[in-house]
Amino acid sequence: MKTLIKGGTIITASETIQADVLINEEKIQRLGQDIIEPDALVIDATNKLVLPGGVDVHTHFSLPMAGTISSDDHYTGHKAAAFGGTTTAIDFISLDRETLDECVDEWHKIADPLAAIDYSAHMNITRFDDRIASQIPGLIKRGITTLKVFTAYNNRLRLQDGEIFKVMRIAKNAGMLTMMHAENGDVIEILIDEAIRSGNLSPVWHARTRPAWGATEAVLRGSSLAAQAGAPLYIVHMNAAGEVDQLEYARKMGLPIMGETCPQYLFFTEDNLAQIDGAKWICSPPMRSAKDNARLWEGLKNGIIKVMATDHCPFFFDGTKPIKYEEENIAIPGKELGKTDFTKIPNGLPGVGDRMPVLWTNAVNSGRMTPNHFVEINCTNPAKIFGLYPQKGTIMPGSDADIAIWDPEKNVTYGIGLSHHRTDYNLYEGWHLKGFPEKVFSRGKLIVDGETWLGKKGDGRFIHRKPFAEIL
Amino acid sequence: MKTLIKGGTIITASETIQADVLINEEKIQRLGQDIIEPDALVIDATNKLVLPGGVDVHTHFSLPMAGTISSDDHYTGHKAAAFGGTTTAIDFISLDRETLDECVDEWHKIADPLAAIDYSAHMNITRFDDRIASQIPGLIKRGITTLKVFTAYNNRLRLQDGEIFKVMRIAKNAGMLTMMHAENGDVIEILIDEAIRSGNLSPVWHARTRPAWGATEAVLRGSSLAAQAGAPLYIVHMNAAGEVDQLEYARKMGLPIMGETCPQYLFFTEDNLAQIDGAKWICSPPMRSAKDNARLWEGLKNGIIKVMATDHCPFFFDGTKPIKYEEENIAIPGKELGKTDFTKIPNGLPGVGDRMPVLWTNAVNSGRMTPNHFVEINCTNPAKIFGLYPQKGTIMPGSDADIAIWDPEKNVTYGIGLSHHRTDYNLYEGWHLKGFPEKVFSRGKLIVDGETWLGKKGDGRFIHRKPFAEIL
Amino acid sequence: MKTLIKGGTIITASETIQADVLINEEKIQRLGQDIIEPDALVIDATNKLVLPGGVDVHTHFSLPMAGTISSDDHYTGHKAAAFGGTTTAIDFISLDRETLDECVDEWHKIADPLAAIDYSAHMNITRFDDRIASQIPGLIKRGITTLKVFTAYNNRLRLQDGEIFKVMRIAKNAGMLTMMHAENGDVIEILIDEAIRSGNLSPVWHARTRPAWGATEAVLRGSSLAAQAGAPLYIVHMNAAGEVDQLEYARKMGLPIMGETCPQYLFFTEDNLAQIDGAKWICSPPMRSAKDNARLWEGLKNGIIKVMATDHCPFFFDGTKPIKYEEENIAIPGKELGKTDFTKIPNGLPGVGDRMPVLWTNAVNSGRMTPNHFVEINCTNPAKIFGLYPQKGTIMPGSDADIAIWDPEKNVTYGIGLSHHRTDYNLYEGWHLKGFPEKVFSRGKLIVDGETWLGKKGDGRFIHRKPFAEIL
Amino acid sequence: MKTLIKGGTIITASETIQADVLINEEKIQRLGQDIIEPDALVIDATNKLVLPGGVDVHTHFSLPMAGTISSDDHYTGHKAAAFGGTTTAIDFISLDRETLDECVDEWHKIADPLAAIDYSAHMNITRFDDRIASQIPGLIKRGITTLKVFTAYNNRLRLQDGEIFKVMRIAKNAGMLTMMHAENGDVIEILIDEAIRSGNLSPVWHARTRPAWGATEAVLRGSSLAAQAGAPLYIVHMNAAGEVDQLEYARKMGLPIMGETCPQYLFFTEDNLAQIDGAKWICSPPMRSAKDNARLWEGLKNGIIKVMATDHCPFFFDGTKPIKYEEENIAIPGKELGKTDFTKIPNGLPGVGDRMPVLWTNAVNSGRMTPNHFVEINCTNPAKIFGLYPQKGTIMPGSDADIAIWDPEKNVTYGIGLSHHRTDYNLYEGWHLKGFPEKVFSRGKLIVDGETWLGKKGDGRFIHRKPFAEIL
Repeated sequence: MKTLIKGGTIITASETIQADVLINEEKIQRLGQDIIEPDALVIDATNKLVLPGGVDVHTHFSLPMAGTISSDDHYTGHKAAAFGGTTTAIDFISLDRETLDECVDEWHKIADPLAAIDYSAHMNITRFDDRIASQIPGLIKRGITTLKVFTAYNNRLRLQDGEIFKVMRIAKNAGMLTMMHAENGDVIEILIDEAIRSGNLSPVWHARTRPAWGATEAVLRGSSLAAQAGAPLYIVHMNAAGEVDQLEYARKMGLPIMGETCPQYLFFTEDNLAQIDGAKWICSPPMRSAKDNARLWEGLKNGIIKVMATDHCPFFFDGTKPIKYEEENIAIPGKELGKTDFTKIPNGLPGVGDRMPVLWTNAVNSGRMTPNHFVEINCTNPAKIFGLYPQKGTIMPGSDADIAIWDPEKNVTYGIGLSHHRTDYNLYEGWHLKGFPEKVFSRGKLIVDGETWLGKKGDGRFIHRKPFAEIL
Repeated sequence: MKTLIKGGTIITASETIQADVLINEEKIQRLGQDIIEPDALVIDATNKLVLPGGVDVHTHFSLPMAGTISSDDHYTGHKAAAFGGTTTAIDFISLDRETLDECVDEWHKIADPLAAIDYSAHMNITRFDDRIASQIPGLIKRGITTLKVFTAYNNRLRLQDGEIFKVMRIAKNAGMLTMMHAENGDVIEILIDEAIRSGNLSPVWHARTRPAWGATEAVLRGSSLAAQAGAPLYIVHMNAAGEVDQLEYARKMGLPIMGETCPQYLFFTEDNLAQIDGAKWICSPPMRSAKDNARLWEGLKNGIIKVMATDHCPFFFDGTKPIKYEEENIAIPGKELGKTDFTKIPNGLPGVGDRMPVLWTNAVNSGRMTPNHFVEINCTNPAKIFGLYPQKGTIMPGSDADIAIWDPEKNVTYGIGLSHHRTDYNLYEGWHLKGFPEKVFSRGKLIVDGETWLGKKGDGRFIHRKPFAEIL
Repeated sequence: MKTLIKGGTIITASETIQADVLINEEKIQRLGQDIIEPDALVIDATNKLVLPGGVDVHTHFSLPMAGTISSDDHYTGHKAAAFGGTTTAIDFISLDRETLDECVDEWHKIADPLAAIDYSAHMNITRFDDRIASQIPGLIKRGITTLKVFTAYNNRLRLQDGEIFKVMRIAKNAGMLTMMHAENGDVIEILIDEAIRSGNLSPVWHARTRPAWGATEAVLRGSSLAAQAGAPLYIVHMNAAGEVDQLEYARKMGLPIMGETCPQYLFFTEDNLAQIDGAKWICSPPMRSAKDNARLWEGLKNGIIKVMATDHCPFFFDGTKPIKYEEENIAIPGKELGKTDFTKIPNGLPGVGDRMPVLWTNAVNSGRMTPNHFVEINCTNPAKIFGLYPQKGTIMPGSDADIAIWDPEKNVTYGIGLSHHRTDYNLYEGWHLKGFPEKVFSRGKLIVDGETWLGKKGDGRFIHRKPFAEIL
Repeated sequence: MKTLIKGGTIITASETIQADVLINEEKIQRLGQDIIEPDALVIDATNKLVLPGGVDVHTHFSLPMAGTISSDDHYTGHKAAAFGGTTTAIDFISLDRETLDECVDEWHKIADPLAAIDYSAHMNITRFDDRIASQIPGLIKRGITTLKVFTAYNNRLRLQDGEIFKVMRIAKNAGMLTMMHAENGDVIEILIDEAIRSGNLSPVWHARTRPAWGATEAVLRGSSLAAQAGAPLYIVHMNAAGEVDQLEYARKMGLPIMGETCPQYLFFTEDNLAQIDGAKWICSPPMRSAKDNARLWEGLKNGIIKVMATDHCPFFFDGTKPIKYEEENIAIPGKELGKTDFTKIPNGLPGVGDRMPVLWTNAVNSGRMTPNHFVEINCTNPAKIFGLYPQKGTIMPGSDADIAIWDPEKNVTYGIGLSHHRTDYNLYEGWHLKGFPEKVFSRGKLIVDGETWLGKKGDGRFIHRKPFAEIL
């Protein structure tokens, strides 16, 4: 079975060319001028862009939290991703069993039957001892090459600095990459306690109890631990100007530190949390200020920040009111759990489907980024850093045929009507977007065609990732 | 006529893939897995890398200077370039006639019959008045989209700040790019006068009379003029740490300023000029210090400097002793002209052929740069910034088949024996290099095959460049 | 004749102490606890601060400009200075005669009979040749140790870079200090021409034709020339954030560069020029933006900027309407000259008297600066840098008894009613100030007592300054 | 009893003046020109400098460590301080009793009978709970206004980040200042364990197990905790370039963070620990590299680092061999305890007496620092920041007559022969110094006269310090 995408403009991280793409089964077989392939299904991409499918390295599907669970499962999340042009998602495996293997097994049990796009997982290292230490390198044969540690969430997810240092050294020797959630857990705990005792329970206090300075120092702390361990590091969801300052400093000092941000941190501020529906914007780390937004944009522009991900972890704004999703009425407890107490609001927000369309308009069309840079941070860099490249993240012969045909002229009014997340709100509701995915292929199979969903549960494939991936 | 490069690893600025390349006449027609093309000449590239031919945007062939002329003409220079993997060179047109058109005509007369690879030219704007101003936009229809200005060489090449500002505005409106030689001409004149009067005439005084601080401020001055003109700017041959500091500052302030460095500034220092054969290292701006070398490397690594060029402008070290070049005995007056007075030494050194082999060993093999980054700064970025892309600078369908097949395992002892410049010395004499071009194609035609030269005078084609090129 | 200031708190650049000050004739003789001196006139300073009289190193009295003359002469300017707590002023001598000596003579003729506080002068070097060069060191025996150069005002005041470089070297060898007005003259000329031709003639175009980027690069250019000359440099009237960035850079690189700002650049912006009475704020360089204000404050706080001066050069806002000054009706053509054309508006504004009272409230009371830091930048640093120390700038035995007794609790509504400049407006009209000079002594003589003026024309003494002054 | 110091040059943090100093009993009564006081003892200070006695805010006398005790007690340490021109020392009180009051009492019992110069103490907060929290403000009435916390020495001295945050808030509300020892305890513990297990036991491993990156991040961590607490912070013994970078960053962000360095960090490197007698240089944090030395000098010069202290904590190099001290043979176990294991070497080195003479030659004479700046960082700033000012730290009427008469022309070969520390080595052995204290007064009493010691045990007075001291 062959498909020929004709007449489009292929965008890779560095190239912009007029060429046809010939897909043979699951793979891209050929790029060429005027390819003629009689037995191929021809897709006319005239005036369209042909982008690699996006790679979102930061999603949380069906994540239990605060007495509920994130409202997208591996199926609905993948479906939303696909509608937004993303064809690979990397989730996180919680360390809530005895051994890492058991955790991985358990996660596969949940994810595999539902997966609709290709996927992988990072392993959370949220407790550490000699047994865990000895199990980490074994993850590689399970296809898992990345570990996540936290400097926040004391007594739940956080490791001590020395433990992180040890994880980094194990990772480094095994060719794995450590990812870090950078905040100062101690101060946050204290401020939250005080907020509660003072009756400061509205959503904006979520932001006020997680100061940007804590994130800033944690970035340097992580970088310093990495320096001392001789290991690379990847900072997730960068959100504060100071974090960019410190990442820039670390890189200038020659350290192999990489950083990711997410769209929400580019557009929103603490003021959004102060709105009547502020709970919609609650995630951790929180929204900051306009000054932080600006520095993140600048950091992207000057190549300090290498990856755009989403930290997708949606909850209903009002989980008491069902919505219709694939003909089913569904309601999952959500943000309303914390109506009177921000500490009870599940942390997280939707985004896996929004990332590429929202950024196309607001980064590419606005001149902040070239289409190549857009592909670089949304597709290629994540694939490279996370050991998926060149299978994923590019449009080249031999790569998986994960492709988004993008209509740069399409105008839409964005929001829940188009985003396909299984939740009742969208942060970008009513935004006018120009440029939108028209057709999306996953390993050669058309899974999104305009507004039509052609994907299937279980069609997604778990990708065994490679260690010793590139450090950018 | 088709050629099929089979089994190699294609390197672009962002991709590294196993794929075959099908060349049809002058163009790359196809990239693909296992291409079979019965009527094509097959080149086995197994275990070889397939790189875009290099683009050197800064060469001076047959440049009259100090009573002589740079010793490579458009033929020998192109030949040397090709042996080093470079397939496009951009030269400079002197403004030494009445009108820009006459200058361009004159330059074509000299270059066209000799050209052996594809080529273009920048226009030097070394005097400025309303007539020149009005002629500048007309260069575009001649295929020339870039202008060079100087802040040094008073009364010869230098424009005043206000003239530069005006040139920038004209350029900006026409979609042209201004390039700048950044030094402080005034101080240099004074210091040279004083050196002469003090009898400080040895080669090292060439460096001592051109202080790095002058280059540093000129970078900010140029950036500031560009900011005020709303225009982009490209700084040539960056050589001093302070220049990188100021380029970084300008970019962080959001200005569209780009910078180039050259290999010589990464490896050599003022100490080389103090050697007995110091004249070999005389070019302008001069070699600096080890600290400057280091900052340039760092600036490349962090993406502050976008292009590697050569400022190729060779002279004989001893132009009284003929060398054999293509069976001819040739001697051209050179550095010996200034044996007793550095101000008489023609400024410039060979490099067009050295750039890629020397950097492959000393940047890629040494871990300072990925192969992709090597391609980015040597091929793709120069092509993009100078309006040659995607015709040049990449390996993609539709691009010109300018290709260097690179043997990453080939060991050579480098020097004049391999470099093919028409001069009697090489700065990298005796350096051990690993990784070397094996075969070089220019628009589909094999022009270098190992040590065999298959190119021809006049086969090179002048490339009409496009205005409004990308600003990186 | 002795005076004993009892019970006050003496503030120096580093000390804050309760002590009495005994003045003997013109000098401070003693500081002590509970000094008893029966034959001294006792001034009760209980609850008052005892500050060194201010040193304003940047004033322009009776400066001819644009067909008129700055409206304060050496008498009225000195008087206004004294009412604001300033007891030394350094003016500028125009280079408008054949020799420097003639210029100095001429300036003395005008200044000496009028001077009411102690004073000195900088020599403007606005043209340069061998004769001027040879005359410069001779200024020292005239008591003049500082030279001012301009990078703006082409064909009037500007020197070329090479000339500035030469001036710096002469200055350095003679122990003199070069001061620089840092803007880019070329661009300014062009933009003004264009504004005129476009009919953009309102006051705000004064700012728009003098971009901050020009000032920013000129600071680095000056610093670089100084670096190459091995000489110190003092940048006058810093006004733009970028200037502070570059001064910080130069100092971090180890260069002996110092900078001054003026109160107007801390409080006002281009928006003030867009007001109906925008002409009041016209001076060169112009007001910038709130971001620039903030960076200047930060630069003061972190010790990057060392001196506060005023660039006092007042003009009437409406010179057709006389005001009463010392019982005389006086009207001097002023800003109204450019009512329909900003290029005709005389550049400059009042400030010599405002500096200390305005900053006390807005820097000390607001917590931006300690009282010691206030004294450091308004009194001690200027005295040290300009060779007046320890005669001026501090309260110590042996120093001139130039003292301002400051009432930190006094509230005033500031403006022309209190400022004593000979002009018809004040930039700080209606500002509420807390803390004000109560009594001012010049060499032991009480010249200001509350609102009473006790000074006299001709009582001021020209201070012969010393070369090789401190570099801070 | 009056003393009149005649004819000297008084140096304060900002002033340099020729004046006499009249001492009346314990206080400076008067500064004046030609003071005549018939009943005063006259000290001729012609051609001498008159400096405020030094304030060393960081000493450890009789500190128990590693099975021994630091070899200077409060008497011998004070005596050595005095010989070096230092007249006030602030020690640390260990938190090794139940309550803070008991700790203070115990410390007084040891210190008070021995003190020979004026002194005070900081309180170590090395464990934290609600009881400690409630006791902290009570320290103020004991005259103790400063608290020290550690981010290193896990399970011994270290507090967790949240505890430090709480300490800072208590301190801030009470007007106290938090001081921080900044290293990363976790990594250090791990590296020491590994070094031991690997048999890496020589002194240089002391440095290798305490990486500079840990100190660097801890400075930002501390600054960030302070930012979040709204509190000021003082970083002790800064030693690494990165620490200066981060302190500069924090200050530029507007945070009230101050830093101290010590002479040893300016002159020595890890190489010294690799010498045969490397144990002499063992202290924590360790010596770093020449690049770190240079950045510390630069940080001092540009006002980023505000205080010079010593961290004086001497041990014998060979505590088995007695030395003679005040006619007594004395030997105290020292560095030899760790002859075969660096972890057993007591950490610390002598310095209280060396600070001012060593720096005079190597900072003032070498042109790195003016005499005023020398006084500022050695005397005035420490007095201000630690609530001793104006009683200590300056030469002004009303201040304690703590004075060092300094002979700027005196040449000595420095070392144990002159340093008076009770130990058997000196880091600056054999260094040639020019400029040395000649006479030292403590509260008006001459305690050092050339090489003669006139001080007495018990003559030192505990200084009750004031809260809400200046933040610089």
